[in-house]
Amino acid sequence: MSDTTVFQEARRYRDRLMSRPWIFPESSLPTSTSEENTDTDADPTMKDPYCDGDNPIVVTGNDVLVAKDKIAGGIVRTPCRRTRMSEALRCELYFKKEYMQYTGSFKDRGAFLALLNLSEEQKKRGVVTTSAGNHAQAMAFQGGKLGIPVTVVMPKTAPLVKVTSCRDLKAGVILHGMRFDEAKAHAMKLRNERDLLYIDGYDHPDILAGQGTAGLEILEDIPDVDYIIVPVGGGGLIAGVSAAVKHLSPNVQIIGVESDRCPSWHTAMENGRPIPCRQTQSGAKQSIADGLNVVRVGFNSFATAKIDRMLAVPEKFISTAILRLLEGEKSVVEGAGAIGLAALLSGMLPEVIGKKVVCILCGGNIDATVLGLVIDRGLVQEGRLCRFMVVVSDRPGGLARLVNILAHMAASVKDIGHDRISLSSYVYMTGIACTIETKNRAHAGEVRTKLFEAYGEDLKWQEEDDD
Amino acid sequence: MSDTTVFQEARRYRDRLMSRPWIFPESSLPTSTSEENTDTDADPTMKDPYCDGDNPIVVTGNDVLVAKDKIAGGIVRTPCRRTRMSEALRCELYFKKEYMQYTGSFKDRGAFLALLNLSEEQKKRGVVTTSAGNHAQAMAFQGGKLGIPVTVVMPKTAPLVKVTSCRDLKAGVILHGMRFDEAKAHAMKLRNERDLLYIDGYDHPDILAGQGTAGLEILEDIPDVDYIIVPVGGGGLIAGVSAAVKHLSPNVQIIGVESDRCPSWHTAMENGRPIPCRQTQSGAKQSIADGLNVVRVGFNSFATAKIDRMLAVPEKFISTAILRLLEGEKSVVEGAGAIGLAALLSGMLPEVIGKKVVCILCGGNIDATVLGLVIDRGLVQEGRLCRFMVVVSDRPGGLARLVNILAHMAASVKDIGHDRISLSSYVYMTGIACTIETKNRAHAGEVRTKLFEAYGEDLKWQEEDDD
Amino acid sequence: MSDTTVFQEARRYRDRLMSRPWIFPESSLPTSTSEENTDTDADPTMKDPYCDGDNPIVVTGNDVLVAKDKIAGGIVRTPCRRTRMSEALRCELYFKKEYMQYTGSFKDRGAFLALLNLSEEQKKRGVVTTSAGNHAQAMAFQGGKLGIPVTVVMPKTAPLVKVTSCRDLKAGVILHGMRFDEAKAHAMKLRNERDLLYIDGYDHPDILAGQGTAGLEILEDIPDVDYIIVPVGGGGLIAGVSAAVKHLSPNVQIIGVESDRCPSWHTAMENGRPIPCRQTQSGAKQSIADGLNVVRVGFNSFATAKIDRMLAVPEKFISTAILRLLEGEKSVVEGAGAIGLAALLSGMLPEVIGKKVVCILCGGNIDATVLGLVIDRGLVQEGRLCRFMVVVSDRPGGLARLVNILAHMAASVKDIGHDRISLSSYVYMTGIACTIETKNRAHAGEVRTKLFEAYGEDLKWQEEDDD
Amino acid sequence: MSDTTVFQEARRYRDRLMSRPWIFPESSLPTSTSEENTDTDADPTMKDPYCDGDNPIVVTGNDVLVAKDKIAGGIVRTPCRRTRMSEALRCELYFKKEYMQYTGSFKDRGAFLALLNLSEEQKKRGVVTTSAGNHAQAMAFQGGKLGIPVTVVMPKTAPLVKVTSCRDLKAGVILHGMRFDEAKAHAMKLRNERDLLYIDGYDHPDILAGQGTAGLEILEDIPDVDYIIVPVGGGGLIAGVSAAVKHLSPNVQIIGVESDRCPSWHTAMENGRPIPCRQTQSGAKQSIADGLNVVRVGFNSFATAKIDRMLAVPEKFISTAILRLLEGEKSVVEGAGAIGLAALLSGMLPEVIGKKVVCILCGGNIDATVLGLVIDRGLVQEGRLCRFMVVVSDRPGGLARLVNILAHMAASVKDIGHDRISLSSYVYMTGIACTIETKNRAHAGEVRTKLFEAYGEDLKWQEEDDD
Repeated sequence: MSDTTVFQEARRYRDRLMSRPWIFPESSLPTSTSEENTDTDADPTMKDPYCDGDNPIVVTGNDVLVAKDKIAGGIVRTPCRRTRMSEALRCELYFKKEYMQYTGSFKDRGAFLALLNLSEEQKKRGVVTTSAGNHAQAMAFQGGKLGIPVTVVMPKTAPLVKVTSCRDLKAGVILHGMRFDEAKAHAMKLRNERDLLYIDGYDHPDILAGQGTAGLEILEDIPDVDYIIVPVGGGGLIAGVSAAVKHLSPNVQIIGVESDRCPSWHTAMENGRPIPCRQTQSGAKQSIADGLNVVRVGFNSFATAKIDRMLAVPEKFISTAILRLLEGEKSVVEGAGAIGLAALLSGMLPEVIGKKVVCILCGGNIDATVLGLVIDRGLVQEGRLCRFMVVVSDRPGGLARLVNILAHMAASVKDIGHDRISLSSYVYMTGIACTIETKNRAHAGEVRTKLFEAYGEDLKWQEEDDD
Repeated sequence: MSDTTVFQEARRYRDRLMSRPWIFPESSLPTSTSEENTDTDADPTMKDPYCDGDNPIVVTGNDVLVAKDKIAGGIVRTPCRRTRMSEALRCELYFKKEYMQYTGSFKDRGAFLALLNLSEEQKKRGVVTTSAGNHAQAMAFQGGKLGIPVTVVMPKTAPLVKVTSCRDLKAGVILHGMRFDEAKAHAMKLRNERDLLYIDGYDHPDILAGQGTAGLEILEDIPDVDYIIVPVGGGGLIAGVSAAVKHLSPNVQIIGVESDRCPSWHTAMENGRPIPCRQTQSGAKQSIADGLNVVRVGFNSFATAKIDRMLAVPEKFISTAILRLLEGEKSVVEGAGAIGLAALLSGMLPEVIGKKVVCILCGGNIDATVLGLVIDRGLVQEGRLCRFMVVVSDRPGGLARLVNILAHMAASVKDIGHDRISLSSYVYMTGIACTIETKNRAHAGEVRTKLFEAYGEDLKWQEEDDD
Repeated sequence: MSDTTVFQEARRYRDRLMSRPWIFPESSLPTSTSEENTDTDADPTMKDPYCDGDNPIVVTGNDVLVAKDKIAGGIVRTPCRRTRMSEALRCELYFKKEYMQYTGSFKDRGAFLALLNLSEEQKKRGVVTTSAGNHAQAMAFQGGKLGIPVTVVMPKTAPLVKVTSCRDLKAGVILHGMRFDEAKAHAMKLRNERDLLYIDGYDHPDILAGQGTAGLEILEDIPDVDYIIVPVGGGGLIAGVSAAVKHLSPNVQIIGVESDRCPSWHTAMENGRPIPCRQTQSGAKQSIADGLNVVRVGFNSFATAKIDRMLAVPEKFISTAILRLLEGEKSVVEGAGAIGLAALLSGMLPEVIGKKVVCILCGGNIDATVLGLVIDRGLVQEGRLCRFMVVVSDRPGGLARLVNILAHMAASVKDIGHDRISLSSYVYMTGIACTIETKNRAHAGEVRTKLFEAYGEDLKWQEEDDD
Repeated sequence: MSDTTVFQEARRYRDRLMSRPWIFPESSLPTSTSEENTDTDADPTMKDPYCDGDNPIVVTGNDVLVAKDKIAGGIVRTPCRRTRMSEALRCELYFKKEYMQYTGSFKDRGAFLALLNLSEEQKKRGVVTTSAGNHAQAMAFQGGKLGIPVTVVMPKTAPLVKVTSCRDLKAGVILHGMRFDEAKAHAMKLRNERDLLYIDGYDHPDILAGQGTAGLEILEDIPDVDYIIVPVGGGGLIAGVSAAVKHLSPNVQIIGVESDRCPSWHTAMENGRPIPCRQTQSGAKQSIADGLNVVRVGFNSFATAKIDRMLAVPEKFISTAILRLLEGEKSVVEGAGAIGLAALLSGMLPEVIGKKVVCILCGGNIDATVLGLVIDRGLVQEGRLCRFMVVVSDRPGGLARLVNILAHMAASVKDIGHDRISLSSYVYMTGIACTIETKNRAHAGEVRTKLFEAYGEDLKWQEEDDD
């Protein structure tokens, strides 16, 4: 596909979306007021002393440096290579391939550190945590290796594949409640009853320090990096990475990216402190970057992170990014992991043109079934899968005429359906809803032109929805 | 369509189905035994003195002759014309078009008589009846004309269109229960409470006598008729018609026809008396001849009817019969009404060849939505609507090849669907499920041959289901 | 269905369509100018002396009276009965059921007369004609009865069923050319070569006189009729009927109706003489009233007809009319035959309210396959078949929620299809295109409201197309 | 998915397929006879002196060792890591990730060596080659880097994406002919006219030596490897790898794998020399491993390769293998690249249980559109995508009953379609064809059981096709 098109699209987007000002939240931590507390935050028995909104813990660059040595033997030193996409995106682009960790995400880092840092006593008793995804697997894996009992409380809605994966990795898995907060409340109850340590997946200080080691590896591999693009969900990764990177190379610019469907960090910024984000909460139309779907970002993360620019990227670019990584990098990256590339594709980052940029591909745990859905969506966004309605004769040969035009144009028919209802006053005509595969946007345009020549106003081409 | 084919089909059927012996049930009325009584039959307060299994009333030919004069002014003298189908069916065939009555069925006859025969006192108080269909409309219509209050109890499952129709005709409509017997029980309760007369739709003696007048009209129009073919549900029509016809012309043969999905009269014959028919009861896969769907035939009807041959016709011929009447006679006839022609089409009546035959088209109340379904089924039965699965290349042009063969053969595509799942080991091939319209069975055969030449074993032609 | 709705709809139509003035074309016959002559008209060897634009023959009422006696034994005296629709349409409405003729249309009348009027010499040599439909069958049937050789030239595009039907009726059938005018030119060549008589299907004077006998029967059955509504194609029927009726009862109003997709008579009126109608010619989107699809109306018909009002009825009402005749009258009427009722349903005839009206149902030859299509279209027009798009969750239960709402509302799902392409930025949502069956427009409205409550803006209800 | 199931399946396969004996073709090279020569082989002007069936060149282990040093700077040293799948497959399994080369396949190796080995004169004049895929891209890429003009002749049927890719990499691309052999003939003509060197993509000796370096890297990383599993198309990779590996570690077992849809190497073995393989030639139902689709394997490759066991793997396991690599390894591997894992999944390699095994994932160039198709097929093979037909009531609620069972079982509906044609004698029932997503084979079994309880014989579950 022509990249000119991507950039044109991007420019349209840029014009529409407010560009957000330079942001550095550290100096502006708000004081908690009780009425804003929600959920388990309000209940003292539920309180997590390591993640306390009133007393956030700021992780330092030094903490990360210490972490790096500790965890070296337990994680994969993932590659950070220059990509062929550099030319098209007009910058020197490197991918930090964190999805190549054993459990498929950067969460292996923090989990290993947090477990290593336990006292011997704690190691024996074990830990408890809540997660429906990557953190659970990382804890299970690292706990299994270290022989530390790990109990994971998951909501009953957690995908079976993740439940099974944790159990295969020898973690104790308890299914409780329908939502994350219900599972977390139960985990806290277990903590209280069994005197376990609760390890928050995106805000425990060790988690932050552990994740930060990815930033140190980037600096080792690409010492003259200009920009590091980091996905933001609860904020643990960007907190750790920015703390480490700004400590050693204060001029490296840290760009955080979240989905405009779950802008929890933006909400925190606008309110001066982490509070639940209403948009994220209303899960009706979820983001494909579901790994970033954290209602309230971490207190410690928010206090620690040193972000130069924060972006909310339109959802539509995420599918395209996943597709580009599949085809260009032969890499399976989940929505959360691809959001950095989505930001680049969106054209919202003109400042990186000509610069050295590292984009962290933070995870790859996406179901094949979802991947199939994403591929189709990505193909649509790239103009390689098109849908149209057309009215043709319902007599012999009427459908053949349409199908022959498509075959002659080398467009492949994926799906075809008759609709004799919508055009109710023409008995001898039928509506045809057709999905076709084209080579690229230009080819799609040619097919459209040819069909318009044949069918005129009887052709309705499905325009892409603008988010 | 070639009628040779119909007959070949018929012959196959005839070989398969047991030919039933000559039947004349009158002389063999059984004695009731209490344990066989079911439903409302057992409850004395529910008892209908006019329809008593222990004391069935035999309606005579004279009763019908008397009825004829009485009702002359209140019903339509329906035509009984020779049909163009005579040649194809190799008999002199006449259709008695009872669907042309005002409410669309022969039920107008009996209803009118029953109401006329009320005492002045009864006329004032009014009557109550149970029906989900034609009898309800007939009672409503005739009651409205005569100014007699008619209350119809319908099950809540009755089609809205019938409920509305009855109300438009000024009847009082009460919806009660989910099944016919529940509605009937409620009607009996009303009868008892309000001292009304209950008029059974297929077994009240006046109903039988009234319906019988259709037989007299037949004799008037076609005095030398050899066979009269009569649809059988509860049995009121055949009872009245046979009583009248055998009275005047004992040599005319009376043939009764029911659907092999609801063979209630056969059940009565096999048991020597009317008992509930298990097959009819299990309504899971209902017959299109739903007007004949009576669980236990009438006691009086069974005692009265003089039937020479009784047939249970395979369901598949009913759709064909409806379709033939639409196209050949420009007549809309419901399943119950078309069952006589279905019997002729089935080839189960070789004795009528060369004879003078009257077939009673007893009703035409079929919803347009159902009619659409029936047309499609009839077209399938006639080889004019075909379905097949074929495996084609999923590359550009793969579908075009198929569609072009069809266009070239002048077959019209009604529906097409991709199935990429069933043939899971061929990634570049796709299954196509296709419904096409052909001119007739011979044309369908040519299309099939052509497709087989092109696709060989990858073609699976949908064989007609044999019931 | 509520008739209020029909009338509201009609009123909207009335406002939009120009009401046409009172018309009586007889006195204003134009002189032919050569450049307007088209097709076979210009070629002297192709000339039909019985249908000459320069010397049109005016058929008189007396001609029709004479015809009536002649043909009495050879045609069906069709019924003309009051219909139950009278109440809903607020007039005393009678249907003249010409579709009950042997070959399914009024054409039997004229054909019989034309053949009877041949000289003995001509009867031996036989006649030739051109027709793709009803006239061909009528000629074949009557010729067969009278033993007169009939040759029918049909375009190769004629439906196989009609070709077969003519051959079954013993006519000689020649397939020639792709269009009607090509077939006609060949027929003229045969006439010249074999010295046969050419009998024009809608303009031969005997044809006009024969068709007019239907008008006389109407006057016999309903002497005090106020309005007679007559379908207009080539104009033979309205010419004959109006000549006869105005002769005997000059005050009876004659209303002609054609489809607004083939307004050939209007074109003739606007030009003062019959000329080819461009709209009718462009057959791309044909009318269901294909029997009326005559490019230039007859010269004699135009000179003879005495029409009080001429209407071009919007196509959409024709399907509704066919459907109403199926359900209400148990009658299968083709589009051309139903156009009179369509005019009444359209609300374009407010003058008939409270009057005695006869509507000629002139033919019933409609293929079952087409009938199926028409039923669906009619159901759509009546709000009994609805289509909508809705966006639902693509997770387990997402579809169930939708289907349960529909089941709870007693709406039946006819067709359901997934569309994951159109809404490309929501990976966990899917579009559903759904066709449902509802009881009537009010019920459809309730279903729509319920779905809107559940899905809000994600619901797109398919509005009926306004022609 | 349960791996027990995989093995059970495998055993069934093993029983069915002939196990092939130990094979070492080197000593048994046949003499060419003229009548067996085909295509360009017979024409002296088309002859490639580097790939001569009469004088095959045997590449030695030493050749590969020399090659390794030469090309070190121009290719990616790809990782060879232990995979999490080891447990499930009961061996110590390593993936050699050759798809991580710059152009997405191992072809970068040989192409670089062949170009380096050119004389200065040849480097100036440039080279010509024929390829529709990976070799073309590799030549284009390496030529571009080295400043050597590369001309690629591709058949016109080559995917646009590959044409574009080669042009982006600065190669001269000529489209000629519809098939590979036509393109090759044109390339030879160019060679003759312009005095270029022709470099055969799978049989030039330098190509063989270059590809063999992957084997040396494997020995470096996993010195104690027991088995190396190598995909076989033209045979260049297995020739080079086996020459190198057997030279250094003669006990390492080399297993070659091709698809049972294009068993060209088996054909060569059976004939004692490379001849065109009829099965491969008949491309109607192509293999997803299209990179292996070489009609005649290379003469030098066949003479060089030292293979311990050669397998033809059933196509169905390839989709599963691709899917497993996507989900388990976050790797996009094309069909040819995944065939080694397919062999392991097929259970045809019981000898590797408990051993150290390296599987070469040789390429990743698969279109996203094809990937989508493969994912679905893989899901079917794993029991995660199921299709069934069921007969349900066509009344309101009939579909809801089915959909509710599925929702209750947490099966997600992917596609649903009505079929009212196939069950033609039940007017009130409809067939439903349904595709659902299930968690795994066990879950699919539960859903099937539940549906069978509800629908009995009316349920037809789509069995997987056995190849």
